[in-house]
Amino acid sequence: MPHITLHNDVLPGIVGLLDYRKDTAKPLCELAEILLRGESTLTTGEREIIASSVSYKNDCHFCHTSHGAAAAVHLGRDSRFIDEIKSGFANTEISDKLKALLVIAHKVQQGGKFVLPEDIQSAHEQGATDREIHDTVLIAAAFCMFNRYVDGLGTWSLPDNESFMPMGANMALHGYRRTE
Amino acid sequence: MPHITLHNDVLPGIVGLLDYRKDTAKPLCELAEILLRGESTLTTGEREIIASSVSYKNDCHFCHTSHGAAAAVHLGRDSRFIDEIKSGFANTEISDKLKALLVIAHKVQQGGKFVLPEDIQSAHEQGATDREIHDTVLIAAAFCMFNRYVDGLGTWSLPDNESFMPMGANMALHGYRRTE
Repeated sequence: MPHITLHNDVLPGIVGLLDYRKDTAKPLCELAEILLRGESTLTTGEREIIASSVSYKNDCHFCHTSHGAAAAVHLGRDSRFIDEIKSGFANTEISDKLKALLVIAHKVQQGGKFVLPEDIQSAHEQGATDREIHDTVLIAAAFCMFNRYVDGLGTWSLPDNESFMPMGANMALHGYRRTE
Repeated sequence: MPHITLHNDVLPGIVGLLDYRKDTAKPLCELAEILLRGESTLTTGEREIIASSVSYKNDCHFCHTSHGAAAAVHLGRDSRFIDEIKSGFANTEISDKLKALLVIAHKVQQGGKFVLPEDIQSAHEQGATDREIHDTVLIAAAFCMFNRYVDGLGTWSLPDNESFMPMGANMALHGYRRTE
């Protein structure tokens, strides 16, 4: 049960919070839309993986699983891909560039000052551009916000990976902007 | 020196980052404006204190000091007030409601799941509304993002409290929306 009365008990995770305060919802959704689906040389699948992986490190089940489901849909994978992100890609090949960007994202999750010049150099060596590094840092930072918003107010979540797939498909197909 | 080439070396902290990518700057500034200066039963001074205090816990000198300076200006105090926030108000009376909200904000800084029902109950007992608790959580979460953005990309900062006072005054008087 959420820590405060949201008057929308059927809406899980951040969905109930976005409904609770619509004026803050607008820039939050706009930020997610630009970062995860706007113009970028990183694919939408790569960006959703960064979002999901940081959310897993922050122990945010709702964000980790929903964005993992969105990544799976973007990449034509099934719900088991959510656990692949969780495992650090035990059975999935990912590019050396994405590996280097995930190192940066996971350091941002711990705190901004954990990112060292050698992490940036390593990402550059794997072909990452300054803009891709910037966006990785901001995606990771933004999910440190979204995760804390969702869990800091005690929202509820769906139980298992499979039940997040329709939401992931909706996120992958229709994005994050709100029409209201 | 920032980790990536921003082409705007004179701009400190988040200012250089907002200039570097203007489309993400827009929702980031809009969020800060609504949370810190929009309609609320919390004063602007109280909200800037929450922002500054969370930034101090995140070891983000630029955000802690600039928002501490903004709080000082809102409350008619001088630059020493920035250190008062840092000290947990060793020599300043603050309300029991703000104390209870700061407990929640500092738990959000550690992670969303650190916030417990008794923290919410305690804030309610000190007169905090659900909406004030919501906004405290979202301000704290948002500064966990801003702090990581600023430090994760290695931006530079001004040296001492006093040199932040003009920026704090500008933030207090003119806010966070960007005109470009």
